[in-house]
Amino acid sequence: MNSSDSADGRYDLIVVGGGSGGLAGAFRAAEYGARVALLEPGALGGTCVNVGCVPKKAMWLAADIAGKLRMAQSLGFGLHADPQRPCALDWPTFIVHRQRYIANIHDSYRRRLDASGIAVLPMRAQLVDANTVECENGARLSAARILLATGGRPLRPDIPGAGLGAVSDDFFQWCAAPARVAIVGAGYIAVELAGVLQALGSQVELFARGARLLDGFDAELTAQLAEDYRQNGVRLHFGHAVAALEGEPGRVRLRGADGSLSEAFDQVVFATGRRPNSAGLGLERIGVATDARGHIAVDELNATNVAGIDAVGDVTADPQLTPVAIAAARRLMDRVFGGRDGRLSRQDIPSVVFSHPPIGKVGLSEDEARARYGDERHGDNLHIYRAGFRPMLYALAESPQRSLFKLICVGQERRVVGIHLLGEAADEILQGFAVALKRGITLDDLRDTVAIHPTSAEEVVLMR
Amino acid sequence: MNSSDSADGRYDLIVVGGGSGGLAGAFRAAEYGARVALLEPGALGGTCVNVGCVPKKAMWLAADIAGKLRMAQSLGFGLHADPQRPCALDWPTFIVHRQRYIANIHDSYRRRLDASGIAVLPMRAQLVDANTVECENGARLSAARILLATGGRPLRPDIPGAGLGAVSDDFFQWCAAPARVAIVGAGYIAVELAGVLQALGSQVELFARGARLLDGFDAELTAQLAEDYRQNGVRLHFGHAVAALEGEPGRVRLRGADGSLSEAFDQVVFATGRRPNSAGLGLERIGVATDARGHIAVDELNATNVAGIDAVGDVTADPQLTPVAIAAARRLMDRVFGGRDGRLSRQDIPSVVFSHPPIGKVGLSEDEARARYGDERHGDNLHIYRAGFRPMLYALAESPQRSLFKLICVGQERRVVGIHLLGEAADEILQGFAVALKRGITLDDLRDTVAIHPTSAEEVVLMR
Repeated sequence: MNSSDSADGRYDLIVVGGGSGGLAGAFRAAEYGARVALLEPGALGGTCVNVGCVPKKAMWLAADIAGKLRMAQSLGFGLHADPQRPCALDWPTFIVHRQRYIANIHDSYRRRLDASGIAVLPMRAQLVDANTVECENGARLSAARILLATGGRPLRPDIPGAGLGAVSDDFFQWCAAPARVAIVGAGYIAVELAGVLQALGSQVELFARGARLLDGFDAELTAQLAEDYRQNGVRLHFGHAVAALEGEPGRVRLRGADGSLSEAFDQVVFATGRRPNSAGLGLERIGVATDARGHIAVDELNATNVAGIDAVGDVTADPQLTPVAIAAARRLMDRVFGGRDGRLSRQDIPSVVFSHPPIGKVGLSEDEARARYGDERHGDNLHIYRAGFRPMLYALAESPQRSLFKLICVGQERRVVGIHLLGEAADEILQGFAVALKRGITLDDLRDTVAIHPTSAEEVVLMR
Repeated sequence: MNSSDSADGRYDLIVVGGGSGGLAGAFRAAEYGARVALLEPGALGGTCVNVGCVPKKAMWLAADIAGKLRMAQSLGFGLHADPQRPCALDWPTFIVHRQRYIANIHDSYRRRLDASGIAVLPMRAQLVDANTVECENGARLSAARILLATGGRPLRPDIPGAGLGAVSDDFFQWCAAPARVAIVGAGYIAVELAGVLQALGSQVELFARGARLLDGFDAELTAQLAEDYRQNGVRLHFGHAVAALEGEPGRVRLRGADGSLSEAFDQVVFATGRRPNSAGLGLERIGVATDARGHIAVDELNATNVAGIDAVGDVTADPQLTPVAIAAARRLMDRVFGGRDGRLSRQDIPSVVFSHPPIGKVGLSEDEARARYGDERHGDNLHIYRAGFRPMLYALAESPQRSLFKLICVGQERRVVGIHLLGEAADEILQGFAVALKRGITLDDLRDTVAIHPTSAEEVVLMR
């Protein structure tokens, strides 16, 4: 602990959990002069920095480069690459870069924590009462406020042989692309892992219980994404419920609920959801309410049912996005220690999946908009605009990958209620349009903005 | 001519010039049922498609790939490339792709022109009166309206030996990267050519009369861009006025106004401005006014001083951007043939330079904002926010290239009046923020939008 620690173990704020949300809350509270203690037994930065967004994006960048290398060859770059493995990545080399990047984030957190005078205790803690936690080593700390931000973890399904499968945390330990990989799931983690592994040389098969990828994203775009995956060699199995894993490590087969048995895979990855880290915190002891899936129940202001105890991030049922946890934690501290008003709006949160190509959305999908605005009473109130095109690089390289952008507009004035982007650079294009949509725009606001040519982004303002 | 041609040579609209603006006007007028004739002696698509935006972006994409290849090697991709020329592009191969892309655009224009029943005459024309043009072959066509859209061309300065230098049109004829290239100029064409050629293997020196790159863009960002160029090996000479070219083709030296003599270059490119194609149109015969630099003078609605004659694009003094020409032409036809209101706003036009990395702006620069809002009366009315960071890919590859984003805000409410982006993906990020800025946003509107993590774009909404 550093010199500004509270000598009597009393703090203004105790943060349980050193992930993105917990850290953001601790830093913001300290800015207001609060004495803060942060308890984190593992690596600082939680899922996002260590086994989520950051290493995932790093692998996605590597996969993206692999795709660019393939295009480079057909465009006339003399790579003289090994024709058998034209774009082989040496994982250990890359992982050194990736982990150095993560280590730099850890260092930066450490420096900021020191500079902020935040006491960091590398251990677990349990709630004793609404103002007190007991650490693993028996020490008790008390504070006016407690923030719970312990995050979540991948869920391994309760089926026979589940131990033969890996989860996303394990993926980040791998040092090579397995030759044959099965991914179980169809959510963003499944889609991201499938895309990265296929691009980096694995033969990937994806097993989805439902009939589509990425529930909650626009169905037309996800259908095109599925087609992109197929064209890139990923085998997609929809309507496939996995009942068991069989075989031995390195030779694992999926037994379907219908009795079918798959071929053998070197690795099977469960991307079947995540679970909040709410056990072992002593919630029940002091009566902090949780929902049926174990999430800590919070209101719009991130308050639990126990006065003085708040929770942010994946341990709650908030959208499981790092920026949501960070924004919620900052707003909370602005209110508690800054005396400032304001709350995080959960409306129109943009979100991007780092698939190949990326897909993003803000606002309502076509189905959601139809349910809300498309009824008979409203008549032809819903207006859908599409732009399908091939970005120049893909056209030059004669790659079939196309982009599909879609606007959902409502009413005579064509108010924009949903923006959906699939394609190269969608991840970077969406943010500004999300600001505009949240601010409230019509189709005319898009059309009145002069296009930036030649880009993919201009297609959003040129839709007719 | 096709079947819908006017049998008596009378049209609703004659468009002189088949560049982006002329084509956009012709297509839009035809949509309203107008009988249209289009006169274009050269390739359809004008500067943008043939010797501007499109082939430029193609070369930029090749240069960008070359940069990615260099990073790929350090990230662990086994390229086994020629160590002497690790990322050599075979220009002829690439140019086949580039010109096929352009040919596809030509084909697409042809099909649309046919489908729209627009008569295309592959020849020059002169104005005879406000409703009549005379073609090169002596044929006369008349119409209720005439749209002049003949574009512009690169300016070769009037100095001794100028014929030893090339212009950007010539660049698109090159079939290899010259070993040593001098670029004269500091505007967007100079900066773009310098970046592309250096990335594709030339040793580039840039000679600028003034003290900076890219007048009109934020000075802080252009200073960082200049540093990026230096780090990539481009030699920048500021305050250097070129008085003459000396030597012979393939061995050209620049004589400075101060008497200095440069080393010899394989190629010297003048990127010293462009001139409108307003000569030979018969403007003086019927009294169409031009400005001192030869631009056809138009009002906000693109009308010339002669009733019934309008002009759009680079032949006018409008911002020399393809999307401006297109938008102006469409609005014009909406008014003339569609009976619709509305005009093109020249306020807050976003613009991007495809440098390495790209730079973009919308709204006011810091200097412009300071002149308008920063006076003593307004006190501390101007608020500048910056985000300097290294995008993940560059950090992973230990490349020094950083991004610098800047917001210019005014007043207590922090109204956003300028957004300036330098860095990877700036070209794609800017469009959505341009919509938001034009719609009117404050810093809080940015902050209230949840970030998309991890991207470069999120830095715009996270500035403090």
